[in-house]
Amino acid sequence: MSEYRLRCISCGKEFGKEEVEYTCPVCGDRKGTLEVIYDYEFLSKKVDRKLFRKYSSEGIWQFKDILPVRKDMVFPALDVGNTPIYFHKGIAKEFNLSGFSIKDDGRNPSASYKDRASAVAVVKAKEKNYDTIFCASTGNAASSLACFSAVSNLNCIIFVPATSPEAKLAQMQVYGANVIAIDGSYDMAFDISMKVGLRKGWYCRNSAINPYLLEGKKTGALELAVQYDWKLPDYVFVSVGDGTVYSSFYKGFYDLKQLGLIDKLPIVIGVQSEKISPIADTFQKEEPFEPIDVEGYSIADSIAVGKPRDVIKAVTYAKRFNGNFVKVTDEEILNAIAQLARTTGVFAEPAGAASFAGFKKYARLNSLEGKNVSIIVTGNGLKDLKSAIKKVGSVKIYPADEEVIREAFQ
Amino acid sequence: MSEYRLRCISCGKEFGKEEVEYTCPVCGDRKGTLEVIYDYEFLSKKVDRKLFRKYSSEGIWQFKDILPVRKDMVFPALDVGNTPIYFHKGIAKEFNLSGFSIKDDGRNPSASYKDRASAVAVVKAKEKNYDTIFCASTGNAASSLACFSAVSNLNCIIFVPATSPEAKLAQMQVYGANVIAIDGSYDMAFDISMKVGLRKGWYCRNSAINPYLLEGKKTGALELAVQYDWKLPDYVFVSVGDGTVYSSFYKGFYDLKQLGLIDKLPIVIGVQSEKISPIADTFQKEEPFEPIDVEGYSIADSIAVGKPRDVIKAVTYAKRFNGNFVKVTDEEILNAIAQLARTTGVFAEPAGAASFAGFKKYARLNSLEGKNVSIIVTGNGLKDLKSAIKKVGSVKIYPADEEVIREAFQ
Repeated sequence: MSEYRLRCISCGKEFGKEEVEYTCPVCGDRKGTLEVIYDYEFLSKKVDRKLFRKYSSEGIWQFKDILPVRKDMVFPALDVGNTPIYFHKGIAKEFNLSGFSIKDDGRNPSASYKDRASAVAVVKAKEKNYDTIFCASTGNAASSLACFSAVSNLNCIIFVPATSPEAKLAQMQVYGANVIAIDGSYDMAFDISMKVGLRKGWYCRNSAINPYLLEGKKTGALELAVQYDWKLPDYVFVSVGDGTVYSSFYKGFYDLKQLGLIDKLPIVIGVQSEKISPIADTFQKEEPFEPIDVEGYSIADSIAVGKPRDVIKAVTYAKRFNGNFVKVTDEEILNAIAQLARTTGVFAEPAGAASFAGFKKYARLNSLEGKNVSIIVTGNGLKDLKSAIKKVGSVKIYPADEEVIREAFQ
Repeated sequence: MSEYRLRCISCGKEFGKEEVEYTCPVCGDRKGTLEVIYDYEFLSKKVDRKLFRKYSSEGIWQFKDILPVRKDMVFPALDVGNTPIYFHKGIAKEFNLSGFSIKDDGRNPSASYKDRASAVAVVKAKEKNYDTIFCASTGNAASSLACFSAVSNLNCIIFVPATSPEAKLAQMQVYGANVIAIDGSYDMAFDISMKVGLRKGWYCRNSAINPYLLEGKKTGALELAVQYDWKLPDYVFVSVGDGTVYSSFYKGFYDLKQLGLIDKLPIVIGVQSEKISPIADTFQKEEPFEPIDVEGYSIADSIAVGKPRDVIKAVTYAKRFNGNFVKVTDEEILNAIAQLARTTGVFAEPAGAASFAGFKKYARLNSLEGKNVSIIVTGNGLKDLKSAIKKVGSVKIYPADEEVIREAFQ
């Protein structure tokens, strides 16, 4: 571990890591989310490209030198990160790109990108001597936290909208979490979680609020650099809900640049649903950014967030690093699920396939000719079957009669 | 690729690989399943332990020298194998073992062990110039084949019982397979698939019938050797349906021993459901073995096979190598799902957790003190939620009212 400080994304004030737990006391929970800032000069003498490998038994922990965790901590006994990347010549050709890849984070322990953050969260909880950890979640962060709490002997309290997909709710229960399913939106679950959880003195795994979560998530960007042999793609597409995953890609690339490991940051395009796109909407206004909260619903439950908690960081990074956002319809997301599965063998949940839908839309609206593109699949399709079935329909049932079936193939 | 021949498990007659496609023409489909026999003397000069690595970007293809595939073939663009192994001191201590591990094959591309076989199946189909491949399946082999066919540009025809879990049926549809859901058992679907598929001239991916499938499956055993740094555990527990996965563990270990890479074969214990246990029942009778077919049902759908097609190979190997079988109840399987998830973070489908249930029962009935044990989780819990929910119940729904929720924690 390197020494690090915390810095408010809005006012820029810096804090020692013992000084604040979650957010800037001046700017508050919404605007005062914190960045983790390392001593890059010191670190750049310590890490080099050779330290990191394409297939490492350590997964995300191979990056521990640039993560805010003590090296003497016991890391949770689950293989997280090290997810596959597939380079797809067919799609590259179809869109006149110089290259195209899919990074499948549905292959993580609880089958979503959120495992990268939960892994760091449980280590921080242990380091800080908490015995209970909580989070609000649309579903994936919660099932992920339940999984990592199970192997870390932490009590886990979950606040989710009761409309969360059945598979995600089942995961939480099976992993033994205490699940508070709320008859309301994710945004309501979030507010209640903060009021109950903090008063109870539990450790908070709400990303945005907890500055270390984004650091776990940034390992997706670090892995991309290693898997691309440090010649990063021009564009990265990833879906956006609260804004932390989006920000984490820029933070990961930024860290690598500060350490002299890469020269140039890819352009990160955040994908939102047309029906609920507060981060894209906020970005369209001029600075200083003011969060534009909305109400709405999308079949991509993981990004159906009306009051995103990391919006300021997301739009600030987008502005600073030349990023952007694109909106897609639910129909485009549903089509992307089937197309992605049938072309690449990767079955994504709606928010996971949204990156593919966003890429296709962006490519239609802007020239990506000759560019190198990567899309991030943030969750496994097995986590939300209803949407997939909506698209492909149910199976046709046949009697157990050879003749009838043979006729079906005439 | 090494040269190889095919040998009947019952009569021992050997065939050149061009001589027969599927089974021994004398002993027939049921008793005449074939083994793939390599030129071990030649191969042992070519392969050594250093050739194989714990974390390899090639996954199962790092073992291509001891697989029946041409090296010039294009392997499907999906990362298969290389699945995590977790060594668990707590469980080892609880059962007085010298070591205990869980190998999580739910982390494969379509989330089951069957991907190891499907990967080899599509390569063989291409090598043999087929454009269509079919299989009968309880669900996992089918969703796996649909996935691998998608990236291999093969038409895929699936015969499954309509009672297959929703998640598995959805996978097949999303991957674009032609799904024939039959109003009947797996055993009926199997018979119909053979009658329709072979007459149509499609390539058959039914394991047992197709001798190359077991070779793909044996990579689980090979990986175990590498992950144990060639000091294999004393016991391996794995659930048994058709019998091919069970046999594949022994075949993998046998190949390694023939090549001088290991000294001793672990004891492989096959786990069946008490309600449908034809392989365990067949094994209890004396040689020459005669298949005892049964009817029955288990919540572990993947091993609910009444007429197992690879029974002769399974019981022959068990007899030859000192293996055995153990039966568990559905209740024991359901308990194992939750216990495994809460102890190890691995959420398994019923047949996947059956290996844990079988280990616990075997440990109670026989002394395993001081032994080193590994269990194989053959499928991800997300593939069959109904059983898990049956055990842990549905979530409790709360109003979006802070006070009510706070009271729940008094």
